[in-house]
Amino acid sequence: MALLVLKFGGTSVADLDRIRNVATKVKREVDAGHQVAVVVSAMAGVTNQLVEYASSMAPLSTPEQVAEYDTVVSSGEQVTSGLLALALQTIGVQARSMLGWQLPIRTDEVHSKARIEAIDTAILHQWLNNGFVVVVPGFQGISRDERVTTLGRGGSDTSAVALAAALQAERCDIYTDVDGVYTSDPRLVPKARKLQKVGYEEMLEMASLGAKVLQTRSVEMAMKHGVRVQVRSSFDDADGTLLVDEEEIMERRLITGIAYSRNEAQVTLTGVKNIPGVAAEIFGPLADAEINVDMIVQNVTENSDATDITFTVTKEDLQNALRALESKRDVLQYRSIFTDENVAKVSVIGVGMRSHAGLAQKMFRTLADKGVNIQVISTSEIKVSVLIPADYLELALRALHTAYGLDAKEEA
Amino acid sequence: MALLVLKFGGTSVADLDRIRNVATKVKREVDAGHQVAVVVSAMAGVTNQLVEYASSMAPLSTPEQVAEYDTVVSSGEQVTSGLLALALQTIGVQARSMLGWQLPIRTDEVHSKARIEAIDTAILHQWLNNGFVVVVPGFQGISRDERVTTLGRGGSDTSAVALAAALQAERCDIYTDVDGVYTSDPRLVPKARKLQKVGYEEMLEMASLGAKVLQTRSVEMAMKHGVRVQVRSSFDDADGTLLVDEEEIMERRLITGIAYSRNEAQVTLTGVKNIPGVAAEIFGPLADAEINVDMIVQNVTENSDATDITFTVTKEDLQNALRALESKRDVLQYRSIFTDENVAKVSVIGVGMRSHAGLAQKMFRTLADKGVNIQVISTSEIKVSVLIPADYLELALRALHTAYGLDAKEEA
Repeated sequence: MALLVLKFGGTSVADLDRIRNVATKVKREVDAGHQVAVVVSAMAGVTNQLVEYASSMAPLSTPEQVAEYDTVVSSGEQVTSGLLALALQTIGVQARSMLGWQLPIRTDEVHSKARIEAIDTAILHQWLNNGFVVVVPGFQGISRDERVTTLGRGGSDTSAVALAAALQAERCDIYTDVDGVYTSDPRLVPKARKLQKVGYEEMLEMASLGAKVLQTRSVEMAMKHGVRVQVRSSFDDADGTLLVDEEEIMERRLITGIAYSRNEAQVTLTGVKNIPGVAAEIFGPLADAEINVDMIVQNVTENSDATDITFTVTKEDLQNALRALESKRDVLQYRSIFTDENVAKVSVIGVGMRSHAGLAQKMFRTLADKGVNIQVISTSEIKVSVLIPADYLELALRALHTAYGLDAKEEA
Repeated sequence: MALLVLKFGGTSVADLDRIRNVATKVKREVDAGHQVAVVVSAMAGVTNQLVEYASSMAPLSTPEQVAEYDTVVSSGEQVTSGLLALALQTIGVQARSMLGWQLPIRTDEVHSKARIEAIDTAILHQWLNNGFVVVVPGFQGISRDERVTTLGRGGSDTSAVALAAALQAERCDIYTDVDGVYTSDPRLVPKARKLQKVGYEEMLEMASLGAKVLQTRSVEMAMKHGVRVQVRSSFDDADGTLLVDEEEIMERRLITGIAYSRNEAQVTLTGVKNIPGVAAEIFGPLADAEINVDMIVQNVTENSDATDITFTVTKEDLQNALRALESKRDVLQYRSIFTDENVAKVSVIGVGMRSHAGLAQKMFRTLADKGVNIQVISTSEIKVSVLIPADYLELALRALHTAYGLDAKEEA
């Protein structure tokens, strides 16, 4: 007998039939003798509707406004929790919902993107020990002053992992609309394979680089508390991918996966004065405008008085970024701005990078052999990212997937 | 400066524009220097949708099922509370929502038709004293074991009156889609007048007799705690009808109004044995089937061994009532059952009945003069009800309205 936390996302509870389907999956774990806590998202579309209501009512700029936003949007998960408890009762499983304030799930006061501080599991354990399945709405908690808070979009993954940590659950199963974590996106790379296991840090890089399987914050929390997380499909019964500590992955591989993002735009400032502090002057205004800058490179040109600075932002932020830079043109004194939205970011990820030289070089060589021009490079301890022309994305992904020995057929 | 409770029903908060309209009404009271607590219903249609979800998921027959039903359906009022708080903030009124568990509003454990036991107003007073409008979702509370409860359909009126009682508010304004309580239904009686004031007991009779302005339970609660309730329109600014203690009504009138209901069905059992206990034997099975019996008359026929018993039930309950009686036919030993669904109940209501003889007789005389046959009569201290053929309803209402001097032109 183990204690499991199961989490079902919006598409898994999209309508009443799917909620009934979730109930049978939960029942299977109960019948196997496990204690089960379930975390649910809102029914698909509900949260969007509530967000639209709230944001058409007020600009949501003050803390008091965002507190009411939280009160409004958190109701979607409350509904699903009650409905799933009903569906479970109907098939003979003792079940009850337990809302954020009932547990309680304590968070900080940062409404609409609160962080979980503590989960009181005393009452929850009591109900589990009495043979009940407890259904907890994801995404919500309460602040110290007893207001409803929410954790930000996708926060239900974080709720589930935090609950698993607090309960010291044996495993946290995240049921979603994909059946696991793949070496690359199977829609673009037909030879992509499902990974049986993936390390926390690798998953973190893959999540932040565009593999939209898990919320980055939930992966950080799993890593911090050592929660074993399984990503699996709501729609079939196959094993998914287990997210574990690196040491637990027996089959050592150097590279785990190839991720990509189409959501980057490149910005180049030419003729920037090559003096100390110029980078701070450029990126200060962007930070003030709450624009996240991703890749940054600085090249010294022949004329050593000036330099070119290139960086990427998300496509949505591009116009704001340009406005922020143009408003500071007299201070920054750049010669011109070039932008390129027709780019894609490709990242090779693997803990092997720590110990094995030449893995980045293999990336550059592979892309060069295919005639793919690299516009920007950035690296971290366990990944190398390059910005390339978007037209070459599929070609690059497939070539790299083969070059690093990730193709499905090679496993046989 | 006074403390007011304002309540807005489902049609008053039907969509975002109407919620904004509610906000301006609340602001007017704030600008007049009043402290204001607001009670809101769910947006029109939302509760029905949630009820449909819950009841298609489970039969809602066990206490645990009904508890989850409450968790699901209470979310509608939570959403409106947050949205109205946002609308108020947007027009410069400090406001916050305060949910059933945040106050808290304590109820008994009878899920889906809980009764309010106590409202803790300490935190609420604190916020009101700090200049905030506090928006409270109607219809919801929490039980002793910290589960969400609901008060039954239309329970938001009760929430508002209970809150006004707990806060010792100067007045509880119920904003609704009618602009007050009328001497009769203006759609059927063109000369019906809006009443400036109506006594609690009269209102109670009118509410339970089909004038769907206020929930019966909220009137009982207002009477018990002496809460001054004003029924008024969300859609214009005219004064409504004030519900007060009888003694407060200066202009003494004998009859206050004429109510009606089309929702009755008549059942007659003929040839019932005329022995002690037979009524209990008939109405026991109906009570067991949770069927409310309204008017009851028993006639002794020429044959003194047998009697005919006539009573009314709601049209929805008729088939169940017949089934219950037929299943007991061998015990009850009646000769036959007649039913008549083509009937209407007309009631004359007024505290004057207590002291003035002849008011009932005027009813019978008026109806006889118009050739309206009376099928059943029942009376209470302040009302007389008769069951008549439905085709004569409008005729009867108008004739009685004139006969009792209630017509609008006579007031001038």
